[in-house]
Amino acid sequence: MIPLEEARGRILEALRPTATETVALAEAWNRTLAQPVVARLTQPPADVSAMDGYAVRAADAVLGARLVVVGAAPAGHPFAGDVGAGQAVRIFTGGFVPPGADGILLQEDAEEAGGVVTVREAVAPQRWIRRRGLDFTTGDILLPAGRRLTARDIGLAAAANHPWLMVHRRPRIGILATGDEIALPGEPIPPGGIVSSNAHALAALVRAGGGDPLVLPIVADDRDAIAAAATASRGCDLLVTTGGASVGEHDLIQAALGRDGFALDFWKIAMRPGKPLIWGRLGATPVLGLPGNPVSALVCGVQFLLPALAVLSGLPPAAPRTILVRAGADLPANDRRFDHLRATLGTDSDSHITATPFPQQDSSMLANLARAEALILRPPLAPALPKGAEVPAIPLGQFGI
Amino acid sequence: MIPLEEARGRILEALRPTATETVALAEAWNRTLAQPVVARLTQPPADVSAMDGYAVRAADAVLGARLVVVGAAPAGHPFAGDVGAGQAVRIFTGGFVPPGADGILLQEDAEEAGGVVTVREAVAPQRWIRRRGLDFTTGDILLPAGRRLTARDIGLAAAANHPWLMVHRRPRIGILATGDEIALPGEPIPPGGIVSSNAHALAALVRAGGGDPLVLPIVADDRDAIAAAATASRGCDLLVTTGGASVGEHDLIQAALGRDGFALDFWKIAMRPGKPLIWGRLGATPVLGLPGNPVSALVCGVQFLLPALAVLSGLPPAAPRTILVRAGADLPANDRRFDHLRATLGTDSDSHITATPFPQQDSSMLANLARAEALILRPPLAPALPKGAEVPAIPLGQFGI
Repeated sequence: MIPLEEARGRILEALRPTATETVALAEAWNRTLAQPVVARLTQPPADVSAMDGYAVRAADAVLGARLVVVGAAPAGHPFAGDVGAGQAVRIFTGGFVPPGADGILLQEDAEEAGGVVTVREAVAPQRWIRRRGLDFTTGDILLPAGRRLTARDIGLAAAANHPWLMVHRRPRIGILATGDEIALPGEPIPPGGIVSSNAHALAALVRAGGGDPLVLPIVADDRDAIAAAATASRGCDLLVTTGGASVGEHDLIQAALGRDGFALDFWKIAMRPGKPLIWGRLGATPVLGLPGNPVSALVCGVQFLLPALAVLSGLPPAAPRTILVRAGADLPANDRRFDHLRATLGTDSDSHITATPFPQQDSSMLANLARAEALILRPPLAPALPKGAEVPAIPLGQFGI
Repeated sequence: MIPLEEARGRILEALRPTATETVALAEAWNRTLAQPVVARLTQPPADVSAMDGYAVRAADAVLGARLVVVGAAPAGHPFAGDVGAGQAVRIFTGGFVPPGADGILLQEDAEEAGGVVTVREAVAPQRWIRRRGLDFTTGDILLPAGRRLTARDIGLAAAANHPWLMVHRRPRIGILATGDEIALPGEPIPPGGIVSSNAHALAALVRAGGGDPLVLPIVADDRDAIAAAATASRGCDLLVTTGGASVGEHDLIQAALGRDGFALDFWKIAMRPGKPLIWGRLGATPVLGLPGNPVSALVCGVQFLLPALAVLSGLPPAAPRTILVRAGADLPANDRRFDHLRATLGTDSDSHITATPFPQQDSSMLANLARAEALILRPPLAPALPKGAEVPAIPLGQFGI
């Protein structure tokens, strides 16, 4: 058995980001930048007012002074002239400060009547003026390559005048579920069979990770059928199989793919749920073989498939995000297998997050996995911990996983 | 000025979830259930083996016993007969336990040769047998209405035999940016103008919140144009405007919409950045008017638009999710406005999350907002806090916001 982290490391180091494509800014949300976004202009483009009021010469705008209003400078409509001695220009937030002015008389500190404004609060030079380039300057690298774009980033790229962005293509993930006993929801169930849940759960996980799932037809436990289906997936960035990866006589994935130039690793991973995992390459296509058990498949999906999707998307290799939580119950000492306790989240009297494992952790209980809000991580040989101890956990649900 | 929470409460109580639509299971990820998912079958459908091995009568399977292998029960292929005295049936994980058997001899505790298996470890009754219905039983409510579907939920709905799900329609959000001074990225910028960033940033925020954005053409600061554009958005579940909501002479949204049956509230909200907010209704369409300043618009988007999207999507009304973090710097006492300090996240020597505000918090700094990983929340009149104190923060980025 090999450690979980080693398995993840070997998977991630074998993967490369997808190629670059050009997408419209409006379609770039949640994609990963393949080229940095560089400012194409300076923002603000000139000194601008931070408030509504009057652009004035600060030296003139002493308490009680009366200034002649010679024009207006709303945002988008710069005043064409200068502000001379004894003059003021009506200005609004974002309006360009006209030449000559060096201060802003706030609207609430001014009284205007008959084209003359009276100063009710002396004006300090440069106060309420945002300097040209305060936000960014032409040539600034605003967003680095390898960044997954947030809504704020889309705003920033827009402000920097980018109608198009270079991003990594969404990884296309083939999903191949095998098994004589499985049927798609709503279709006739063979005698002794069950409804297939893995393929569409993994497809949703792929969507959650920013990929494009390609769900292949279910194939029976037959070497030729598996080999044919796998061959059909050679255009994918990654082929994920589920089922057929255990140690019994019905372990067909390896046998089926082995005939076809499949460079294979088969690992038993020291983890629970999980354990059997296939990792290899069919021609140029990496192949990740997950267990057929739905709970094992999804936990392996979180630990291996989501990080793999991130790397394929152009993000740095990383373990799933964890948070520190307080154990909501005593935790027994762990054995040699990295354990993932399905748990609910709550809050203790000190507002700290607690994670309480379900009493039953059987790896066949999919309903419990769906109800879980976190996976408490118990590394190999972790000692027993009392209720209230801090433990790491992978939060679920928040990210659609 | 009204408090932020009151404004959010009044917005959320005025909104109703969108109508129901039927979508394929494969398309239901991240949608909100409009009807519960009820189990259409029992899982497992019979007592099944939890391991690979042999189904036996536990009373027979004492240490050293030799049992005749009379058949096999792989998953999906139940054994047709019974297990009689002195007999065993080869079984695999998920295989139905044949009548007569009441225990599983693990593969690693067995030696098979010539159709006879020798017991190397006595078998306990019921051990390694998963009882019929351990996961769920026909009629169980597996997923409640009002739940946003995760990848695990999709798996569970599949296992419960649902090819279709009833979900709330994705909220359609009209986005109307106004201003003489703004141009779309890549288009000619008017003299004194800037590139419009709000519309596409808000559209991305709508996507992050599970909605469908409808970006309307930019309209100039002209009452007729604004009124016409707003009328075009009447099929939306919510119209979001940006710009034109301040207190100066160029506050046109209210004036433009007021002529057209607009039932209006205009609020100054005790928050920073933010402050001016329009809330009302144009015919049947709720209207949320955000400030034109990009940083204010996005912070208001997080505090008001995302919760509004959640309610429209069928989720319960709620404030944005916060986490408790340690302040990475001394925080000054706050004034009467609810403040949102743009901050980076880190980890202190005790592995606790820290949030350190940027030294400059000017509300025109969009690049700082994009770099921020959290908004530290400082309620009105919050006292000064030393570095290391616990404060609530809204995490950004993780959700594409």
